[in-house]
Formats: sequence, C-alpha cells, structure tokens
Amino acid sequence: MRLAELSERSGVSTATIKYYLREGLLPPGHRVNATTAEYGEEHLRRLRLVRALIQVGGIPVATAREVLGHVDDDSLGRTIRLGAALWALPQDPEPDEDDPSVATARAEVDRLLVSLGWETSRELAPLSPVHRSLVAAVAALHRLGYSWDAELLKPYGELMLQVARRQLDHMETYDSRTEQVEMAVASAVLFEPVLRALRRLAQEEESARRYGIE
Amino acid sequence: MRLAELSERSGVSTATIKYYLREGLLPPGHRVNATTAEYGEEHLRRLRLVRALIQVGGIPVATAREVLGHVDDDSLGRTIRLGAALWALPQDPEPDEDDPSVATARAEVDRLLVSLGWETSRELAPLSPVHRSLVAAVAALHRLGYSWDAELLKPYGELMLQVARRQLDHMETYDSRTEQVEMAVASAVLFEPVLRALRRLAQEEESARRYGIE
Repeated sequence: MRLAELSERSGVSTATIKYYLREGLLPPGHRVNATTAEYGEEHLRRLRLVRALIQVGGIPVATAREVLGHVDDDSLGRTIRLGAALWALPQDPEPDEDDPSVATARAEVDRLLVSLGWETSRELAPLSPVHRSLVAAVAALHRLGYSWDAELLKPYGELMLQVARRQLDHMETYDSRTEQVEMAVASAVLFEPVLRALRRLAQEEESARRYGIE
Repeated sequence: MRLAELSERSGVSTATIKYYLREGLLPPGHRVNATTAEYGEEHLRRLRLVRALIQVGGIPVATAREVLGHVDDDSLGRTIRLGAALWALPQDPEPDEDDPSVATARAEVDRLLVSLGWETSRELAPLSPVHRSLVAAVAALHRLGYSWDAELLKPYGELMLQVARRQLDHMETYDSRTEQVEMAVASAVLFEPVLRALRRLAQEEESARRYGIE
C-alpha cells in the first residue's frame, strides 16, 4: 500500500508517519521510484505498536526506538529478546540503597523467590530492573510500618504467575517471533491499566458480597 | 505521647506534623494545657497512612483530606465507606465518549461482568469510577486493534477476584472498622507497585522456564 492508504488504515496522519520514519521507529517502505514507497502489513502492525508505546504509554521517542531495536534483534534468544524489550520500558523507581528498609526488603524478596521456587529470577536478580522495582516497592511498605513478609506475599506471586502464563499462552498464538515480542511489549504497556481496573472492580464486588450495600 | 515523641516514632518532623494538623489530615491531640497536647497510637497510625498517601502515592493534600474524611465517616456502611475512600483516590483516565471504541468497550465490559457473575459491579457501574477506568482501558486496546474480548478477559477477572479476596481477608485481621478501612486505602496506594513488579517478575520467570536463557 502507499503512504496515503497506510495513513487511512492506521488512523495516523501522513505527517506523523513521516516523522516516525525519520526517527527510525518505522522501517522504510520498499522504494517503487524516487518519490514513492510501498508499505506492507508489517508497517501497519508496527505503527500500532508505536502508537501504543508513545500515545498510550507516554514513552519518549528515544526509549521507544531502543525498545523496538530489541524487538527486531533476532540474534537474541527469545527470553533475552523479550527481557531486553521489556527492561527498556520505563520502570518504577529504583531502591534507595541508603535506606535501611531496602536491605530488609531485599532479604524478604529473596526469601519470597526461594519459597516460590523462582530460581531463574533469583539468578537474574542482579541484572533485572523488575527485581529492583519489587525491592523498592516492598521497602516502601516496610518504611511505613506495613510489614508484608514473604509468607504474605507468596500467594500473590503464585496468582501473578498464573497471569503471566496466560499472557505467554496468548503471545504464542501469534505466528512469528517478531509478532510475539511485539505483542508482549504492547501488553506490558496496554494491559497494565486493564488489570489494575479489574482488580479494583473485583474488590468492589467482593466487598459488596461480604458486607452488603447498606 | 508528646509531639516530640510522635515525631521520633513516626520519623516525620514536628514541622510537618504541625502542617498535617493545620490541614486537618491528623486529628488534634488531647489538650493537656495551653501549650501541650497528648497524642496516641491512633495518631501514629494515621500519620503512617498520611505519608503513604502523600509521599508514596503523590496524592495532593486536598485529595488526602477527602479520602480520610470517608475513612472516618462511620455513619456509612462498610462497602460504601471503603468504596468512598477508594473512589476518592486519583483514578486512571476517564473514557472519551466521542470515541466509537468506547461504546464497543462498554458492551464488552458488560458481557465480561455478566460472564463473571459480578452482579453488584453491574449495578454500581453508573456510579463507579473504577468501572469507567476499565472501559477506558479496554477502549484503548480496541482503538489500537488489540481486540481483547470478554472471553479473553474473563480468566484475568477471576484471578483478580482471588487477589481481592486475599486482600479483604488480610484487612479483616485488623481490629476496628477504622483500622480496616485505613489498611484498605494504604494497600490501594502501596500494594499496586508490589503487584505490578511481581507480575513482571513472574513473566521473566515463566519466559525463562519456557524458552531457556540462551
């Protein structure tokens, strides 16, 4: 398809598409002649992901370019390719190492991972920004005196593993590796608000079931 | 205890405590004489919650005051008191009613709630900002062409109900109604990042189990 059709089918203006092309967020089309290029379904798909990252996720262009670089790097193994793409997304705050709650929280998170049997996560811990976010979040609880320990957190870890399994099952319904990694990145950005709202709604529902609506 | 001790035990400066008192975020102490007031454990607990809302949650003082007003209003039934406190917290974006994806998403969310058997949530839907957030989040997916329908969302709803049940079980281990509502509000703010990090970590773990670390 030509640029005009790509614009119409994606709902993104031609000016914005040209900007994404210049910024390297979208691979160039196949040149037909000096002034015309031809675009395919992969451009439409990529454009959808770029909008998810930038317009919905509010991610800066440079970050989006880095994420997409990992998505496209098929020299990487699948776990690393997925990890690299997800780790490049903006993360929650890093733990403040001067805060004594951080050491407590790190030990507690380690006990949690042992108890869950998440051995790979323990191995990857020194590298993983996700692990650091968990330590920071648990440290924030401890600092305020809400001491959520490994025992209390374990069942939530198990539930979140079920969520992750479903998401990877869904990801695997896509044909190519690239589409699968694209899907994983899109849902990291777009699915978070869905889960958050579902959890709050579940709390309303369960609360009404237990205590009624007086 | 006196102000100095309240400051020491809470780790909040006396100037900040005085500010919270002036702003009505903390109930006044019991006057001992013209210049001295006595504070109790309930002040320490409330201070912890105020810090969770303002320092960790980044919630404006006026919003925190509104939330705490609902927490303290024991004329309300428990579901409403919980709901009012949680609804007063900052919510995700509202759906844009001019967007055709919103009508599709609203119908899909309704099918989801029917299929989950969440009858109370359906009844409360016109009032609930949480319901509107879910519609907005599903609409964002649809608009970008990721059509997550009721069938795909249902198992996530069931998992989130299990999360909500655990949280209410934990809440019920606290003695008084006020402490229970305080705990629910604190975890709405503080537990969100823990769950998000747990879910991302679960995805790393499951991905490494399935695809190895090449």
